[in-house]
Amino acid sequence: MLTTRLTHALGITHPVVLAPMDGVAGARLATAVTSAGGLGLLGGGYGDGEWLKREFAAAAGTRVGCGLITWSLARRPELLDVALEHRPAAVMLSFGDPAPFADRIRAAAVPLLCQVHTLDQARQALDAGADAVVAQGGEAGGHGVGTRSTFTLVPDVADLIADRSPATLLLAAGGVADGRGLAGALALGADGVLVGTRFWATEEAVVPARAQARAMAAGGDDTVRTSVFDIVRGYDWPDDYKGRVLRNGFVDRWHGRETELTAQLAECTGQFEDAVSRQDFDVANVTVGEGVSQIHDTPPAGEVVRRMTRDAAARLGRWASPTTAVGGRDGTAPREPEVSGP
Amino acid sequence: MLTTRLTHALGITHPVVLAPMDGVAGARLATAVTSAGGLGLLGGGYGDGEWLKREFAAAAGTRVGCGLITWSLARRPELLDVALEHRPAAVMLSFGDPAPFADRIRAAAVPLLCQVHTLDQARQALDAGADAVVAQGGEAGGHGVGTRSTFTLVPDVADLIADRSPATLLLAAGGVADGRGLAGALALGADGVLVGTRFWATEEAVVPARAQARAMAAGGDDTVRTSVFDIVRGYDWPDDYKGRVLRNGFVDRWHGRETELTAQLAECTGQFEDAVSRQDFDVANVTVGEGVSQIHDTPPAGEVVRRMTRDAAARLGRWASPTTAVGGRDGTAPREPEVSGP
Ligand SMILES: Cc1cc2nc3c(=O)[nH]c(=O)nc-3n(C[C@H](O)[C@H](O)[C@H](O)COP(=O)(O)O)c2cc1C
Ligand SMILES: Cc1cc2nc3c(=O)[nH]c(=O)nc-3n(C[C@H](O)[C@H](O)[C@H](O)COP(=O)(O)O)c2cc1C
Repeated sequence: MLTTRLTHALGITHPVVLAPMDGVAGARLATAVTSAGGLGLLGGGYGDGEWLKREFAAAAGTRVGCGLITWSLARRPELLDVALEHRPAAVMLSFGDPAPFADRIRAAAVPLLCQVHTLDQARQALDAGADAVVAQGGEAGGHGVGTRSTFTLVPDVADLIADRSPATLLLAAGGVADGRGLAGALALGADGVLVGTRFWATEEAVVPARAQARAMAAGGDDTVRTSVFDIVRGYDWPDDYKGRVLRNGFVDRWHGRETELTAQLAECTGQFEDAVSRQDFDVANVTVGEGVSQIHDTPPAGEVVRRMTRDAAARLGRWASPTTAVGGRDGTAPREPEVSGP
Repeated sequence: MLTTRLTHALGITHPVVLAPMDGVAGARLATAVTSAGGLGLLGGGYGDGEWLKREFAAAAGTRVGCGLITWSLARRPELLDVALEHRPAAVMLSFGDPAPFADRIRAAAVPLLCQVHTLDQARQALDAGADAVVAQGGEAGGHGVGTRSTFTLVPDVADLIADRSPATLLLAAGGVADGRGLAGALALGADGVLVGTRFWATEEAVVPARAQARAMAAGGDDTVRTSVFDIVRGYDWPDDYKGRVLRNGFVDRWHGRETELTAQLAECTGQFEDAVSRQDFDVANVTVGEGVSQIHDTPPAGEVVRRMTRDAAARLGRWASPTTAVGGRDGTAPREPEVSGP
């Protein structure tokens, strides 16, 4: 068992938080993660009030939180009331300045998590009084800025927090898909992890099995950060944000040719929507991060929590013993690190 | 002390290897790293035979290896003979298929390290019989492909190695700048680390103090991967490779306007060369990675090895005890992770 400041602060068993993946993280997935000892966040995403009410209702009896996208919330501020009425275990704000909403969340005594992609955004999150900063590296699935990586952003934000607000918690997001990722994130200075892609590939995720099958056949080299799907979906993302997805025929055709895509928008949107309904993932988006390499099955989400935390604890714990073998995938390839006091 | 398969295989004390930074990693730096218990690699870079002879001679008596760039070596294959004549502790090949040179290196019984940026390149390295694969994430200073990040590339390559060639060693490169980075890399499945940027900012590095001062004032958000300096230097890099550098006036002016830069090449090259000679780093390049955030001083390189390994060992070792505080910068901000057997 791995206990950190995060597990104490949120009253959870494992330092593993489900990313509030738009549409994908509904009540079934969120409650499964919470029931396994992590924390589930509903994917409030672009803001569908009915969806949010329905999923909070379906999760009733199990502690879950939710995530909201600030630039979308700015257009429908009432969504925050919907969320707060359900006494969420936490609210996570992503993809913009959290300041306009932070006070209401704190006033409701709900823990505020803020997702950031750069050090400047981390400063903004601290200014807004975040209880936890989620430092997302560019390897993450879904949207982000993509200029920084988990490996360096986590220690950078840890230092900022140590200097300016030592009580604030730090979660690592982006590429955490197994016990190595959790162990690595903790070693880099995080108090826990926010996991998207790995939970996307579980039984409870609202994801077509055909999309999951594509992901299982793919590796991290097959993902790319692009705006082509935002263009065809008519999503108003701020310029700096693009989404990491699997390469497919549509991406290969349009990535880098965004101006032409926009010029043929009606036709391409039609093709895209048609592909979504036919589950043709050579055109429709498969939204996963570089960690997709680590996905070889679609188990129940609780099993993901258990594997990840068990392996991370074993991996970290072993460094204490001068003789135990460590390393490889799931500890299969024996390595021989030894630690004797520094 | 952290002992791994790498330290056993290379006969070194700490799993820390100096990146063969072109020009920057001369005999002084390489011998300092070896003397501190890591392994120093001379930066053979684009291939100056006289430089290589001189630096190997200056390092005589201390075990060092060297790095060579394959696409440049292909034009001056005799450089490999120069390197092998000096019985290097290792030869590292970067930035292209190692196959044409691998046999000669292995025939000389010299350990072969191959730097890779994608899984396909890792396969190529294993095919060439690499003794160690260096998995470089896009956060790295200097050249690379930049499509993958250390956090996910390291476990991906670890899995590939476990499947295809379990005896091959794995080094993580890109963003490793302190004990957290070393601990994180080992947790992610590496046997050791290759460190560039952090050693660039040491007493023994061949780097103007003014460039180091700029780096100390900068953070990871201030770096960018670009080809503008390759264009003005007339370097023939293969298309996929760009170099991570600090943003400065020159980068802000030309990055994204490479075609125009090429059209005004003579003039811009003149300005650039003039800036190099005047040490004007608003125009000349400062080649560092995202890990630059962690650089606050320019100590002797041996001190970097000691700090990094001491902190990593403490950080990893602490997870064994159920009560010790861990986390923050240099252990200053107390966290309270606890591990009890999985
Ligand atoms: C399918 C998918 C949808 C996502 N949707 C959202 C979202 O609606 N809101 C949000 O804050 N983050 C969203 N993200 C990003 C996650 O919050 C998180 O940063 C990311 O999943 C972490 O990286 P990982 O995918 O490698 O685990 C999404 C990620 C994925 C994979
Ligand atoms: C100033 C500088 C010069 C570099 N020159 C070379 C080189 O000549 N050959 C090479 O293989 N790698 C070179 N690299 C890349 C390193 O091998 C290594 O991948 C990188 O430094 C690791 O990331 P880090 O800088 O974050 O430690 C260079 C890196 C830097 C910072």
